[in-house]
Amino acid sequence: MIYLDNAATTKPCALAFERAKEYVTEKFYNPSAMYKEGFAMQSELKKARSVLLSKIADESAFELIFTSCGTESDNQAIFSFAKRGNAVTTAGEHSAVSAPFAELKNRGICEPRIAPLEKDGRVNVQKLLDLIDEKTSFVSVMHVNNEMGAINDINQIAKLVKQKNPRVIFHSDGVQAYGKIPFRLAKEVDLYSVSAHKIGGLKGVGALIKRKSLVLPAYMIGGGQESGRRSGTENTFGIMQFAFAAENKFQTLKADYERLIEYRETLWNGLDQSIFTRISTQDGTPYILTVSAVGLRGEILLHMANDAGLIIGTGSACSSNAKSRYSKIALACGYDEKTADGVLRISFSQATQKEEILKAIEILNGVAFDLKKRMK
Amino acid sequence: MIYLDNAATTKPCALAFERAKEYVTEKFYNPSAMYKEGFAMQSELKKARSVLLSKIADESAFELIFTSCGTESDNQAIFSFAKRGNAVTTAGEHSAVSAPFAELKNRGICEPRIAPLEKDGRVNVQKLLDLIDEKTSFVSVMHVNNEMGAINDINQIAKLVKQKNPRVIFHSDGVQAYGKIPFRLAKEVDLYSVSAHKIGGLKGVGALIKRKSLVLPAYMIGGGQESGRRSGTENTFGIMQFAFAAENKFQTLKADYERLIEYRETLWNGLDQSIFTRISTQDGTPYILTVSAVGLRGEILLHMANDAGLIIGTGSACSSNAKSRYSKIALACGYDEKTADGVLRISFSQATQKEEILKAIEILNGVAFDLKKRMK
Repeated sequence: MIYLDNAATTKPCALAFERAKEYVTEKFYNPSAMYKEGFAMQSELKKARSVLLSKIADESAFELIFTSCGTESDNQAIFSFAKRGNAVTTAGEHSAVSAPFAELKNRGICEPRIAPLEKDGRVNVQKLLDLIDEKTSFVSVMHVNNEMGAINDINQIAKLVKQKNPRVIFHSDGVQAYGKIPFRLAKEVDLYSVSAHKIGGLKGVGALIKRKSLVLPAYMIGGGQESGRRSGTENTFGIMQFAFAAENKFQTLKADYERLIEYRETLWNGLDQSIFTRISTQDGTPYILTVSAVGLRGEILLHMANDAGLIIGTGSACSSNAKSRYSKIALACGYDEKTADGVLRISFSQATQKEEILKAIEILNGVAFDLKKRMK
Repeated sequence: MIYLDNAATTKPCALAFERAKEYVTEKFYNPSAMYKEGFAMQSELKKARSVLLSKIADESAFELIFTSCGTESDNQAIFSFAKRGNAVTTAGEHSAVSAPFAELKNRGICEPRIAPLEKDGRVNVQKLLDLIDEKTSFVSVMHVNNEMGAINDINQIAKLVKQKNPRVIFHSDGVQAYGKIPFRLAKEVDLYSVSAHKIGGLKGVGALIKRKSLVLPAYMIGGGQESGRRSGTENTFGIMQFAFAAENKFQTLKADYERLIEYRETLWNGLDQSIFTRISTQDGTPYILTVSAVGLRGEILLHMANDAGLIIGTGSACSSNAKSRYSKIALACGYDEKTADGVLRISFSQATQKEEILKAIEILNGVAFDLKKRMK
């Protein structure tokens, strides 16, 4: 089975898993415990924190809080700071941001405002800025779009946002960017969400990176772990495995980036362009190629590919919980329903092999050809 | 090193870890994915859910939602239902309940009311009932006290609470009870929090059990996982390991219960009773023996025992995040500061051996004797 749905989740890094195993067999102590084995766990967590943070930020200006997932990081950021006036986000956000924004309205907390997208999936920066006024308390712009692969220049956007209103708290969902896109956080970014399982970590581990001087209220309240910003016994095994997986991933970040650009283009060039239309652009993340088999149903192609030995995603966040048949994001980019319905997302990882790309071309062309024939 | 701080965390079950490993190496798919490997993950999660729930509840009346920890389960229960009038809890609660209750007041959500404890750590039921009136929206009473080992008869308490006000939502923190105390949920209990890492599971996994007919709002909002009640990609590996660990733990629940009563009494009878005073009572959980070396500092004894090869806890929830030197709970039980300062919590697990108990007696008597001598 060829696995090209790595934007949904990646296979956990086996080496990181083996390295972390001692946190299950030996170093299983509670990091809050007051004996030396407990203190030792705290110092291990501190090292993991530093490994994960230092890869993308200046440790003198930023700090990192462990959470249980990217969704929790996003929820904590939004519900902590979108409290007054209005809050601005984009039409391209993952549901971990868009659903809490909808709640801001439902709960009468503040007015959510949604900036439209460009055709390629990036936010329209001018229209985003137009939505920001003196009453804006919070702005959230995702770094890499999980469906379209589009990269928002969040450092630049954060600067422009703060020029317009310096009191805004700026957040970015970096779940599809961390460990994949060469990048360091600018000081104008206040909060940045990351997730372990998109880069070889385990599900159930995430982090919220924050500007040190920003006072972050706790979202999970209790024993005072994570300096009071996230209570609950620390997931030591998952955290250490995340740090080891990140060490491994960041080591090859640039090489992966270059190689996957080549794979992505090879895949695109190999697809039958009388059937497939390219949706994601060349300046998006190399980890995602989004195409549409216009007039065919993406979901059916996904199942046919699956039967033929290839796993890919569709547009609707590859989610069985999604309410709509169409990719909300593709529609937001201005594509018609016919195009949105045919969206397929093919996403890569550090482990993706050239042979898998070549085989994927064959399978995708084959199933699309078959389905098209059947529909005549 | 002898580990007798199992109420803080237990060593993960090695067999359950090995069994769950395939969810890292092979079955790593995103359970929300729309291809057969994703659907298969959903059905595995369903099985795990059933294993974990069926052990303590009727599956036709209750359901189980996976969370990231006991703290999250408690936070979700409290912030979902303690919304109007007043909310009642006990002076014995873990900080995962007591801290959110303090927040109810800080945020002006509703009035928290705290019922006092009996000397043994159980809630004073009459005084709890006295606090409940027609404006009470929510009541939370922990099942087994994590410091004193006292067992509250939560099924009976829930019945009495609902007799007084049938509209109350009744929650119990079952973190120290689940898999340890023979027990099944009565229909009057609406919500029950459990945690994996107290019974051989991994840190970072918990669950909130709820009455099926109760509408539970989401605390983590996003992709709509857990039927919309807990968004975030499911921690499949941790969840499966939890289910396997629970299968193993429940199999020996009754035998463990009997054996640990014997070990607990052996330990108590072996301790020098001119130094140690018993705090936890015989009708508390067999998993915890709480004593006080009155006039000595529990924290110093803990460190001396640690150096001598024995790991135990102190009264203050064995937490380096605690603000007070004294066990808040021991004080709430009516003990003076001198007694509260000397509190030691010795806690057992399925894996605890008789030889460890005997060795622990020797070490505890030795270090207490040494410290007492030094203080003369």
